[in-house]
Amino acid sequence: MNMNLKNFMNGHLPLIEKELEFQIQSISAPQPLKESMLYSVLAGGKRIRPLFLLAVLDFLNEQHKDAYTIGAAIEMIHTYSLIHDDLPSMDNDDYRRGKLTNHKVYGEALAILAGDALLTYSFGMISRLPNLNSDSKLDLIQAFSQASGAEGMVGGQVLDMESERKKISVTELEFIHKNKTGALLEFSIYAGAILANATGEKVDALKNYARHIGIAFQIQDDILDIEGTSETLGKTAGKDVASDKNTYPALLTLQGAKDKKEWHINQALSSLRTINEESGILDELAAYIINRSN
Amino acid sequence: MNMNLKNFMNGHLPLIEKELEFQIQSISAPQPLKESMLYSVLAGGKRIRPLFLLAVLDFLNEQHKDAYTIGAAIEMIHTYSLIHDDLPSMDNDDYRRGKLTNHKVYGEALAILAGDALLTYSFGMISRLPNLNSDSKLDLIQAFSQASGAEGMVGGQVLDMESERKKISVTELEFIHKNKTGALLEFSIYAGAILANATGEKVDALKNYARHIGIAFQIQDDILDIEGTSETLGKTAGKDVASDKNTYPALLTLQGAKDKKEWHINQALSSLRTINEESGILDELAAYIINRSN
Repeated sequence: MNMNLKNFMNGHLPLIEKELEFQIQSISAPQPLKESMLYSVLAGGKRIRPLFLLAVLDFLNEQHKDAYTIGAAIEMIHTYSLIHDDLPSMDNDDYRRGKLTNHKVYGEALAILAGDALLTYSFGMISRLPNLNSDSKLDLIQAFSQASGAEGMVGGQVLDMESERKKISVTELEFIHKNKTGALLEFSIYAGAILANATGEKVDALKNYARHIGIAFQIQDDILDIEGTSETLGKTAGKDVASDKNTYPALLTLQGAKDKKEWHINQALSSLRTINEESGILDELAAYIINRSN
Repeated sequence: MNMNLKNFMNGHLPLIEKELEFQIQSISAPQPLKESMLYSVLAGGKRIRPLFLLAVLDFLNEQHKDAYTIGAAIEMIHTYSLIHDDLPSMDNDDYRRGKLTNHKVYGEALAILAGDALLTYSFGMISRLPNLNSDSKLDLIQAFSQASGAEGMVGGQVLDMESERKKISVTELEFIHKNKTGALLEFSIYAGAILANATGEKVDALKNYARHIGIAFQIQDDILDIEGTSETLGKTAGKDVASDKNTYPALLTLQGAKDKKEWHINQALSSLRTINEESGILDELAAYIINRSN
């Protein structure tokens, strides 16, 4: 990993973890519920979404005291979606990041409720941000709801389920991922732009960057299912192929998927360069996504 | 039913239904998801929470253009909680309001996701209200998140599950219901007060009213499980007794539960009278709760 990115991550990651733990510990709720929420939230995610938010602030030479709190709220929504996706009636996964999934430890009922509680709490967190003006908070809540709900992540998940028993086109696959994983990543980058008080063209360029990175991120996920091992992934490798899932390699060949990923990374970076020649950490985070092995 | 209340309900109920349908139809989401959301949202609920919100406005001689939209948002959260509660890993109910439960029609996966989508969308709805100032919207979002999440409804549901295999005290039972059903009802009444621009003492008196009504409401639910029939209830009667559940009649005897309900209704009404001798519709809604048979 590039030295800059390493320093950036070493600086921010402990504070993201700390904020997540602080937020959940400060909830006044029954102990088993808090435990179940904490278990999944602190189960060692890569925190890619909060890191993108912070990298956007860095890119725009800004700082904001609420950045970690918004990052934590996004990570809580991401975590809830994983808890629900892993349920027996959904993907039925026993392991996630090398650890037992939430319902394997706490049972299905508590897993569903811990997901619901994380989702619900994250909106309250944004409404209480101490250093952001009211209209920006409402703007974030509106965009957050859209990105994570029926018009974004949840809708994408439904489309993904619907497509399971049929062959779909690359365009349809892209539409699924634009919603299922892209929307929340895009929101993270948008939130960074809002915190930095960025204006029209900059926001548009960053959104465009986010869209391409989101697709590249998903392609890499599909590639890892083929090239990775269960050990490095922390979840069952080869599951997509075994279940005849619609993936980029399945539709485009493995090499075709890799080429497409490169193309999206390049599109993302040229979008950034319309704002600033020095794309710094945002560039390096993109490279990290290409090369990640889990 | 009292004529005033009948007119009040006949006037408002169609508009609450219309707003609910309008809100969900305007979501840009995959068809099966929208269908599943609509199915449960329009499955014939009593709309008690939006009615309380509107009755508070009436009581305070105010009107507000966003009242139906907030009422719909509350009803969406209430509906999501029913969809998730009915799941096989939770209460495992096949019928609700005389109709098949969501997962019996759409499958567990889509039921979970429809619940998640309703929950997520409701926060977006409040953030977009066109006729309310930004700070009041944020206040509502904060209170809504607290009432429906780990510190309210979801927390109460967890406590209820935890108490299933042990005997608890009336105080503990009250704490469960204060969260599980009381918190969202209290929020509905609080939202009415906020829309009416009510101030400190009035808000406190209304919150006190809400707390007592919430308990009375739950006691009546428990009584109906014993005295009602599956036909009038639209769900399986006698389930609480069969599963040896902690209920007010089980802890206090049936007559004791009825006495306690009356006491809470009276407390609620005296709280209202500190604001206004004429409690009008709010009084009558309380009576409707006492006498309801489903």
